[in-house]
Amino acid sequence: MKKYSIGLDYGTLSGRAVIVDIENGKELASSVMEYPHAVMDKALPTGEILEADWALQHPQDYLEVLAYTIPEVLKISGISPDDIIGIGVDFTACTLIPIKADGTPLCFLDEYKHNPHAWVKLWKHHAAQDEANELNRIASERNEPWLKNYGGKISSEWAIPKIWQVLNEAPEIYDAADKFIEASDWIIWQLCGKETRNSCAAGYKALWNKTTGYPSKEFFKALDPRLENVVEDKLGTEISPLGTTAGGITEKAYEMTGLNVGTAVSVGNLDAHVCLPAVGIDGPTKLLIIMGTSSCHIVMGTEETQAPGLCGVVADGVLPGYYGYEAGQSCVGDHFAWFVENALPADYYEQAKAENKNIHKFLREKAEKLRPGESGLLAIDWWNGNRSILVDADLTGMMLGMTLQTKAEEIYRALIEATAYGTKMIIENYRKHNIPISEIYASGGISQKDPMCMQIYADVLNLPIKIAGSAQGPALGSAIFGAVAGGGYDDIYEATRRMGTVKNQIYTPIPENVAIYEKLYNEYAILHDYFGRGENDVMKRLKKIKKESRDV
Amino acid sequence: MKKYSIGLDYGTLSGRAVIVDIENGKELASSVMEYPHAVMDKALPTGEILEADWALQHPQDYLEVLAYTIPEVLKISGISPDDIIGIGVDFTACTLIPIKADGTPLCFLDEYKHNPHAWVKLWKHHAAQDEANELNRIASERNEPWLKNYGGKISSEWAIPKIWQVLNEAPEIYDAADKFIEASDWIIWQLCGKETRNSCAAGYKALWNKTTGYPSKEFFKALDPRLENVVEDKLGTEISPLGTTAGGITEKAYEMTGLNVGTAVSVGNLDAHVCLPAVGIDGPTKLLIIMGTSSCHIVMGTEETQAPGLCGVVADGVLPGYYGYEAGQSCVGDHFAWFVENALPADYYEQAKAENKNIHKFLREKAEKLRPGESGLLAIDWWNGNRSILVDADLTGMMLGMTLQTKAEEIYRALIEATAYGTKMIIENYRKHNIPISEIYASGGISQKDPMCMQIYADVLNLPIKIAGSAQGPALGSAIFGAVAGGGYDDIYEATRRMGTVKNQIYTPIPENVAIYEKLYNEYAILHDYFGRGENDVMKRLKKIKKESRDV
Repeated sequence: MKKYSIGLDYGTLSGRAVIVDIENGKELASSVMEYPHAVMDKALPTGEILEADWALQHPQDYLEVLAYTIPEVLKISGISPDDIIGIGVDFTACTLIPIKADGTPLCFLDEYKHNPHAWVKLWKHHAAQDEANELNRIASERNEPWLKNYGGKISSEWAIPKIWQVLNEAPEIYDAADKFIEASDWIIWQLCGKETRNSCAAGYKALWNKTTGYPSKEFFKALDPRLENVVEDKLGTEISPLGTTAGGITEKAYEMTGLNVGTAVSVGNLDAHVCLPAVGIDGPTKLLIIMGTSSCHIVMGTEETQAPGLCGVVADGVLPGYYGYEAGQSCVGDHFAWFVENALPADYYEQAKAENKNIHKFLREKAEKLRPGESGLLAIDWWNGNRSILVDADLTGMMLGMTLQTKAEEIYRALIEATAYGTKMIIENYRKHNIPISEIYASGGISQKDPMCMQIYADVLNLPIKIAGSAQGPALGSAIFGAVAGGGYDDIYEATRRMGTVKNQIYTPIPENVAIYEKLYNEYAILHDYFGRGENDVMKRLKKIKKESRDV
Repeated sequence: MKKYSIGLDYGTLSGRAVIVDIENGKELASSVMEYPHAVMDKALPTGEILEADWALQHPQDYLEVLAYTIPEVLKISGISPDDIIGIGVDFTACTLIPIKADGTPLCFLDEYKHNPHAWVKLWKHHAAQDEANELNRIASERNEPWLKNYGGKISSEWAIPKIWQVLNEAPEIYDAADKFIEASDWIIWQLCGKETRNSCAAGYKALWNKTTGYPSKEFFKALDPRLENVVEDKLGTEISPLGTTAGGITEKAYEMTGLNVGTAVSVGNLDAHVCLPAVGIDGPTKLLIIMGTSSCHIVMGTEETQAPGLCGVVADGVLPGYYGYEAGQSCVGDHFAWFVENALPADYYEQAKAENKNIHKFLREKAEKLRPGESGLLAIDWWNGNRSILVDADLTGMMLGMTLQTKAEEIYRALIEATAYGTKMIIENYRKHNIPISEIYASGGISQKDPMCMQIYADVLNLPIKIAGSAQGPALGSAIFGAVAGGGYDDIYEATRRMGTVKNQIYTPIPENVAIYEKLYNEYAILHDYFGRGENDVMKRLKKIKKESRDV
């Protein structure tokens, strides 16, 4: 009798369910639902205007995804809930919800719903930068040992800056919140009626460490005396490793989803990290690059190594038993979209339209005819700052080599190449710090849609690249965890090997391209350090002048 | 009784005549004619294909301009030829014609017309770069004293490289040519029947010096033994200062133009240098910036000073009695045009069309709302290399500070600002080498059409800028020389003061903008030296890689 699991993937703008065969990971049905409130960055549903850099969501949308997509995949596939052995969920992070003790989001309550701080702070809420700066300053002064696990700097996107912002700007909401919880854990709670905190989110976003726990009370007190007991008061100290079972579907969740009461629910997971099992990565040294609007570079290792420029190293952060390392690039697909929206001549659009082609495809057809180095252009991919390895949001983009003959497709290709050089910088940084890399896998939209980009990456990295077999990487990954939770496999490693998939096609480096890209990468590396490591801080000075000019 | 003079201006694509009142320089009529053969850069009229970097013209076009525009301005103005006291002519340079002893261009003869080298090499013919490189190398090795008068490097656009290219590639044409002559001097010959060689072209383009004459025979012999006597054999040693009279209209010229026989003809002049009298500049320290596709920065001084990065210093090169200094930027209007053609999003074109606006005007309306520094962008204006002060064609463009919020109008403005920084670099270089600058004048298309650009220049340079009163700067300048040749004034200085004009409007620096642009210029200067003076030769290495890649 065939058995199935469900994977549920909560992205930035929509949620998606897939139902897969646990024998081979084959997808039988999928269903996607856009969040009715999308990202709220201008105003609350109640009309209150939001300041710049805010990004909120509505938890009701998350529940509606459950209620719509799960019945939908059951219906489409025709599979009986009796044959679903488990469900796994992944989510964006740090996506943080202030809740009452019973799990009710504060924004569901009339009393609080007019206060922006009562809502879900989405991962890309960037209004806690002051708190992040202050936290980094204090942690650095105090020489906090855990700081190096995050490459020496933590992001304003993470849990403590977000919570601290609430405390600073809306202490009444901070007081009213019995807890702050990751959306990944909150949705698991809605399914199985039990609060859990997954090791992935706790480790990467809330400074938790498997050996040493959270930062000390002294540290939190140094931040703000009111934060001294923030961990005990507002978070949770019991952390569940990935790959364990959170509980079973409740009566209430059955009513919402149609899944049998008792169906196993895996602990929550994050949308990037869950992609590794989806491509069959079951252990160390195999790097997955998840390529979308931004990129994420995750690899497992057997030691806890502190390397500069990491987003984080977390025990059990990807698969139990290994250290998960994460690095990132802030601007990849966004980069190419910026170009198309802001810097492409009208006749390209006209021609693309005449040929009935997507503009990226149209550009690609021109750009892929160019040989490496032929344009004479070199870009630095910091249009959205640098996440790894410099961890510096104040860096900006650069391009040079332009002449009066430079064409749009040359600029387009240079932007793609720049992101590949940035990736190579990350891989070299991993290796330099004894985090071995033996193979490269790619998932995410770009890996599926842009063969030219993938070939450029293979040539620049001088490594073959395997491509995720499923376009629904995170959802498949969650389904794999669901299969383990439901007892379909004894462990996640075996499930990964059986259910994870890559395409037959592998992008293999082309030697003559490799030789040219080595030269170009050397030029990139020189400028990366010149602009990024303090030799010429022109980008920061320009940002300062820009700020002063706008403040006039 | 009122008297008039005619100014004739030969540009790259057309020739233009104006007729002006010698009392005040007021323009009474003008007429323009496009050259029927324009620039020949693909093939000869006889069908022979040209190689890359060639740019030729047809001398017949020059004669047709005479025959069309002069009668036309006489007709339009209704002025009798009896009241025309003189004519002056300016031309692009070095625009070089191989001729027989009687002035007949070789390309007029069936025997030679199939050979590209028999035609006029236009100023922007760039196929003599190998010869220019070799000349620079040998001159530098021999420590030729005149080399420093040209900022240490001469251009492939100038006379000796062009003549040497003929000798190398078509020795039969070199032998058949009794002379090589500047088009400015050739057209004077056609008008007054007498060969003259003007001091401006000889000095700026053919290495002639008022005190020391041409480079030595030893130098030319070192280039190529066949060139030992090139000056005596192929050029002319008698040089006429600007402001003197070449002769009078001949019978043949009367038939072509309708001007009275004997009407005074001034010696030839160059289209940039002739603009100074047109704005009333009658002596030292007043810098004129001629702003078009590229820019030219000319000022007079009382001493012969050798400064790096100049295009040249020439005695009597602008007005007799002074040293004329010239510097240049290779890419100004071309820069803005490149942007509009290659890097502007479709919706900007659509909106501009909907508002029925020229695209530059449309962009300007957006860009002029930006405060200095507000975009966070900084560009280096080397899209077409650097003419001054680095004299390096292998440098390329750079821009930095881009973010995902960067808009097209911000890039547009940054390109304009970059050209202003390049101009400031030139002015500071003049001053550093004891060539004083007290006032700034601007002429050329941009000065007439782009008030935002002119305000940015005033703010960046921190100097008021006066704008040429006539949109036909060169033609008016030639008419002023024509008036002097015809005896309307005792000297060119008085004629300049009376006939040269500027607009009432002066662009005055805005102090708060000056303060910000000072900071931005400092950043430009750091990067200018970093990329331009050998600290990081990435631009040259990229050009090398580009060349190798294209040669595959």
